[in-house]
Amino acid sequence: MITSSITKKLKGIIGNDNVFDSPESRLAYSYDSSPINTQIPDLVVRPTTPEQISQIVQLANDEIFSIVPRGSGTGLSGGTLPSENSIILLTNHWNKIIEIDKENLCVWVEPGVITANLQADVEKYGFIYPPDPGSASISTLGGNVAENAGGLRGLKYGVTKNYVLGLEVVLPTGEILHTGGKSVKDVAGYNLKDILIGSEGTLGIFTKILLKIIPKPATSKTFLAFFSSMEDAARTVSAIITAKVTPSMIELLDNTTIRCVEDYTHIGLPVETAAILLIEIDGKKALVDDDAILVHEICRKHNATAIKVAQDEIESIKLKTARRSAFASLARATPTTLTEDVAVPRSEIAKLVSRISEIGKKNNIRIGTFGHAGVGNLHPNYMTDKRDKAAFARAEKSIIEVEEAAIELGGTITGEHGVGLYKKRLLEKMVGSPSMIMMRKLKQMMDPNNIMNPGKIFDLRPKCEGPLPTEREQIKKFEEVAWI
Amino acid sequence: MITSSITKKLKGIIGNDNVFDSPESRLAYSYDSSPINTQIPDLVVRPTTPEQISQIVQLANDEIFSIVPRGSGTGLSGGTLPSENSIILLTNHWNKIIEIDKENLCVWVEPGVITANLQADVEKYGFIYPPDPGSASISTLGGNVAENAGGLRGLKYGVTKNYVLGLEVVLPTGEILHTGGKSVKDVAGYNLKDILIGSEGTLGIFTKILLKIIPKPATSKTFLAFFSSMEDAARTVSAIITAKVTPSMIELLDNTTIRCVEDYTHIGLPVETAAILLIEIDGKKALVDDDAILVHEICRKHNATAIKVAQDEIESIKLKTARRSAFASLARATPTTLTEDVAVPRSEIAKLVSRISEIGKKNNIRIGTFGHAGVGNLHPNYMTDKRDKAAFARAEKSIIEVEEAAIELGGTITGEHGVGLYKKRLLEKMVGSPSMIMMRKLKQMMDPNNIMNPGKIFDLRPKCEGPLPTEREQIKKFEEVAWI
Repeated sequence: MITSSITKKLKGIIGNDNVFDSPESRLAYSYDSSPINTQIPDLVVRPTTPEQISQIVQLANDEIFSIVPRGSGTGLSGGTLPSENSIILLTNHWNKIIEIDKENLCVWVEPGVITANLQADVEKYGFIYPPDPGSASISTLGGNVAENAGGLRGLKYGVTKNYVLGLEVVLPTGEILHTGGKSVKDVAGYNLKDILIGSEGTLGIFTKILLKIIPKPATSKTFLAFFSSMEDAARTVSAIITAKVTPSMIELLDNTTIRCVEDYTHIGLPVETAAILLIEIDGKKALVDDDAILVHEICRKHNATAIKVAQDEIESIKLKTARRSAFASLARATPTTLTEDVAVPRSEIAKLVSRISEIGKKNNIRIGTFGHAGVGNLHPNYMTDKRDKAAFARAEKSIIEVEEAAIELGGTITGEHGVGLYKKRLLEKMVGSPSMIMMRKLKQMMDPNNIMNPGKIFDLRPKCEGPLPTEREQIKKFEEVAWI
Repeated sequence: MITSSITKKLKGIIGNDNVFDSPESRLAYSYDSSPINTQIPDLVVRPTTPEQISQIVQLANDEIFSIVPRGSGTGLSGGTLPSENSIILLTNHWNKIIEIDKENLCVWVEPGVITANLQADVEKYGFIYPPDPGSASISTLGGNVAENAGGLRGLKYGVTKNYVLGLEVVLPTGEILHTGGKSVKDVAGYNLKDILIGSEGTLGIFTKILLKIIPKPATSKTFLAFFSSMEDAARTVSAIITAKVTPSMIELLDNTTIRCVEDYTHIGLPVETAAILLIEIDGKKALVDDDAILVHEICRKHNATAIKVAQDEIESIKLKTARRSAFASLARATPTTLTEDVAVPRSEIAKLVSRISEIGKKNNIRIGTFGHAGVGNLHPNYMTDKRDKAAFARAEKSIIEVEEAAIELGGTITGEHGVGLYKKRLLEKMVGSPSMIMMRKLKQMMDPNNIMNPGKIFDLRPKCEGPLPTEREQIKKFEEVAWI
């Protein structure tokens, strides 16, 4: 419990104006973009220097309370949900782009910079920052690094970790650590940077981030290919990769997603189509033209019923914006939408698509699937209502079955959303016992009092305490302790 | 000490034929490609399964002896040099390419596969494996992963870690851990894979490696640009990057290197030239042609005295082979050649070049410098004779001064060779105290008995025991305990 003495000490560190303890303030941070749980934090704090964070962390170790770092709260796995006896530590106000280094192709940013703002800023100088999670227009770069966020351009350009050159981070024991730098090659000692990237707020709080940028491609071509079956679309993806073409983007939308997106955006998608691939090719013009011809041929060979090419930049942005709205479009269609984030080797994408469809039919649950097919990463969305216990249980069962299918196909339970609270159940099954042991030891080594975002990714308790609670039991537990 | 009882147990695990204890066998593994130290291992073992390695590791923990894993022994930082009370564990015989997966663009290999053999094999199918350390024709992939090896194509294609998708590894406590896989996106739990990559044999032994391959570029163009000063050449490198061109290779050779290479290879390099840039551009033909014109212009603008374009593939390979022979060419020119491996942000490359030259003059030592200028990674070679104490001391002083200059310029003491034994002195100065503490804690957590390649990267002893010995003191210590 955060006592009034702790609150006083926190106010002493960061000033009265940066500690929020009113019920309204706390309520505002009782949820994130994940759809199920809520939990009221004891307090919300807004530090402004690494030294302040270091002092807060040391206080948390002395007084034993938990710290949940939070950017924009756009995470989909519950990673920024408050835990019991916790304070929310905000970084989203800390939003300066500190330096754009055009000679070394990198930028120093504060953790609260919005992803899209950085993208827009570096584009002015002829660069791009490629990682682009669906939530780029509101997500923060600190959150992107904490979750190792992916996005639409992952196929050609990789994910966040491929762009993090350096970090300033406050460790769970209060030390301010600097790792990495502008030298693109560096093998001096263990790679601490990549342990911290994707650690979901459990191993430290980022206070400064050095990111790589790259020259902006000269041109790009965007088009939609329509298919009368999901399997045809999925096989087209594998065929494109096998043909040694690397589009910047291959996004897949199933019929349910197409309907919901059209219903939301009214951009004229054909709602009878079983599947759409949104494909973007970028680079020098000659190369883009050649690759586009090849990709068109492959689409036709795999029974594409039509191909629609974006006529200009505006239409291209419109198509991509429609794709980006997929999650929101599905979320508004039913009271509760649970988003999955499985990924498989690219050769297995057609099999995964079939398995998702079978599981949906078997469990009588509507699933809208879209995602980054080019990298084998799909987002099945389970459309349900958490107030309908039976329907919700069927959704829950489907999630587990789809995750198990992904593991069987050599894939992962989470390609880009992180484990957070929602994917903990199958983590050990997926990564194996030696990895789980090493992860737990790493956490205990770095955070001996378990103060940093506890209960995310995994629980520290030993196996002898029995199996972890189901999603529903977790929710129940949350509901019991929550105010609302 | 490896007692006869331990030897017997080892023979029980892997068979008599795979344990080598004759003086000749041990002598053969008493050195690696680093030029200074030698140390006789107590025993040499050649396990053939991960389970055997696991048993050996468990025995080492029970009986307390050290294990030094070794591929081809091509490392330049002393990473595979035996320590006291150690056995050499060979993996170089374990050399099968297990699978080439053309659909998922990846290969499973055993750790002893020679880098160049993999490159040749995947080229048959129209792919490349980009990392190409100078020693590619003899280095093993296990060693490449352990050192996070770089190479000539790092500018465009990155280094080894950018291509490792999965690992099977025997941990220092004997568990066999599997991490990563064919799914290119995966954020399920902490990134254990990247802790192990570049851990220089101190955190585990790789027994199976999953590597990414990429489509082979359609064409390439190789050329040499000659300069009358190193500074002009270095400024050309920065100008190329700033112009948003990304050659696959920009290699720099100074006059000393040019002379030694020409003396060794007789390929007709102009020995009066102050500096040469070896530049390669690859990709689709139209793109390569455009970029080549631009790069030629930049070279001329920065006072290139001549540009020589390779007329065909054979000539291109000849030029690159000459560059690859730089280390060997310099090594044969004097009795002892100490190779440095500093890297700096690309914008600082001209400053680094000047500093190296100043330091050489001041300390009266001949330095031949070459390296991966496009990524700011240079290899100054200190040409000396370890039997001449005064000259060797001047070389040693120069190494420290160049490393300090690299740190001052925002760079690193090692871009690709690893810390091993030779770069330990300045590691803490470079990475800072919090990073050092975290590295030591990580090592102690994973290897509580310090049995895996102890004394490499850093020593575990606390600060209160005083400063680490100088290079010379280390050598003296080695000479005292060595047989030869």
